[in-house]
Amino acid sequence: MSARANTQVVLRAHPRGQPQERDFGCVQVALPQPADGQFLIRNLYLSLDAGFRQWMNEGAGDGYLPGMQLNQPVMGLVLGEVVESRQPDYAPGDLVMGRTRWESYSLADGTDYMTKLAADPDVPVSHYLGVLGPTGLTAYFGMRDIGRPKPGETVLVSTAAGAVGSVAAQIARIRGSRVIGLTSSDDKCRWLVDDLGLDAALNYRSDEGLAAGLARLCPDGIDVYFDNVGGATLDTALAHLRIGARVVMCGGLAGYNDTTPLPGPLNMFKIITQRALLQGFMVTDYVAEYPAAIAELAGWLKEGRLRGAEEVVEGIEQTGPAFCRMFAGGNRGKLVVHVGDRSRG
Amino acid sequence: MSARANTQVVLRAHPRGQPQERDFGCVQVALPQPADGQFLIRNLYLSLDAGFRQWMNEGAGDGYLPGMQLNQPVMGLVLGEVVESRQPDYAPGDLVMGRTRWESYSLADGTDYMTKLAADPDVPVSHYLGVLGPTGLTAYFGMRDIGRPKPGETVLVSTAAGAVGSVAAQIARIRGSRVIGLTSSDDKCRWLVDDLGLDAALNYRSDEGLAAGLARLCPDGIDVYFDNVGGATLDTALAHLRIGARVVMCGGLAGYNDTTPLPGPLNMFKIITQRALLQGFMVTDYVAEYPAAIAELAGWLKEGRLRGAEEVVEGIEQTGPAFCRMFAGGNRGKLVVHVGDRSRG
Repeated sequence: MSARANTQVVLRAHPRGQPQERDFGCVQVALPQPADGQFLIRNLYLSLDAGFRQWMNEGAGDGYLPGMQLNQPVMGLVLGEVVESRQPDYAPGDLVMGRTRWESYSLADGTDYMTKLAADPDVPVSHYLGVLGPTGLTAYFGMRDIGRPKPGETVLVSTAAGAVGSVAAQIARIRGSRVIGLTSSDDKCRWLVDDLGLDAALNYRSDEGLAAGLARLCPDGIDVYFDNVGGATLDTALAHLRIGARVVMCGGLAGYNDTTPLPGPLNMFKIITQRALLQGFMVTDYVAEYPAAIAELAGWLKEGRLRGAEEVVEGIEQTGPAFCRMFAGGNRGKLVVHVGDRSRG
Repeated sequence: MSARANTQVVLRAHPRGQPQERDFGCVQVALPQPADGQFLIRNLYLSLDAGFRQWMNEGAGDGYLPGMQLNQPVMGLVLGEVVESRQPDYAPGDLVMGRTRWESYSLADGTDYMTKLAADPDVPVSHYLGVLGPTGLTAYFGMRDIGRPKPGETVLVSTAAGAVGSVAAQIARIRGSRVIGLTSSDDKCRWLVDDLGLDAALNYRSDEGLAAGLARLCPDGIDVYFDNVGGATLDTALAHLRIGARVVMCGGLAGYNDTTPLPGPLNMFKIITQRALLQGFMVTDYVAEYPAAIAELAGWLKEGRLRGAEEVVEGIEQTGPAFCRMFAGGNRGKLVVHVGDRSRG
């Protein structure tokens, strides 16, 4: 029966530049059986994360993660339910999250950031891949420990309509800062201001352009820049830093589609004259603090101070196309793919 | 009489690229008379500081300091003795330091970082422009607050034979780190290791080159990089950062000779993957802490743990040539020009 087959999204070609639908395909394979120490997860949601793009390149692999191989399932974060277990720490019915593959069922052994979820029944479970998951936590810790926005400060967030940016921008608002979001369309600008409550949003693809838009919206400069993209956007932001500014070095989206490095920022000297701080971080260094952070974020969600902006795509076959759409700037908030449902009872 | 004339070093031409002797000239002008609120300083030592180079460019001036004008005295730090005063806070005989001009006598009014010196008689007074002055204090606060070198860590210092670098490198040694200095000749490498006690030094102009040299001397990477130069050196250092590394963004020597910005660093993504911190600072933000810092540095000097490496050039006419020699990498430690002597009695 079809429930006993496993559908996997495989990498058909190493993307060159922006990922294309033809770079991905679906295959059906037999459902794997857990060996000793393993368990089988029925995936409920797959997470689409721009950060994984770089490991799709030919010859990728930087010691942090291996590069992805052709015709193999695409590596990704999943949220699912344990349906069979030969690992004593995991039992059927457990909700789990971790890094496996884009597939309807995953074998796991408890490594690769696998964690059990004590999901709050008042929050959609898919939020644990988004606002309460790695992207939301990335925004949370980056703002808490590096950005440190204060009331009245001006905070700039790139890819503000994305999974990380939408949470980072809202957290800065909760902290009382004036928040400007960068995004790639007028529609998303309206969404950021009207629905997420940002103070202003800037379409960096508009005729005005980024530099002029920043000069208009941040005439006194930027106190915090939450950088998800690197490249020319980071460079322009550096030119607008105020004294004592903090730059949260979170992601390099602008470079993920390229195999050669982007030109580096020209405005490095501003870091000195503005006494600025740039700092990188990895959310996985904060595992021990996840529960407390998730509790605070969930509290904000339930108080209506934070919106768990997400877009749910239906069906595993849509995974590749949705991933491509994300790189074309087509999503609002976190993109997840719904691929299965919880057992009843 | 000649003691009543003032010799000034003027800017004859805006340097293009590396400064040349012909860019500077000397003039004799009448000794100025202090107006109400002013005092006259007989300068004892002029300080040569690479950081002032950038304000010599045509059209320079960035809001922090104005650009220097042709045929006007060159802006610079001086150390001197008050010889006449119509300012109640300053009396004849006071030793003072501040930003005036390269000249034998300076008029001042107490602004422009003018401070009175309570000079330690056991330390050469010229050290207050070097190891106990802005360059030494720059090294001190940059290492204390940003670099934070720990015992056993690997610290890389660029322009290690320069005024700031020679002190930064020695402070990291005092803190128990393994210190590698970058410099531009084999002679200076030997001086850094044999005289200043660094663990190793690398001539970045050698055939081996910077990247291979760093891979050899820092096979496990760099915990702290004290950056005085920016440009390609910073980029190469970023590629070698260890997890949790700190980069002290202190100076951009590599760019001071250029009117167009240097290419930016390509390895910005390393800041994220290595959870690294880059931070700029200005020593003038620490004025309130100067006395305590000077006391600690003077203590290390007198204990023999720190060498106040300096080169004293004789005669104000040598100021321009010595400044040019500094950019050609010809100095060891702080360069000062001796232009006058204290009153007797």
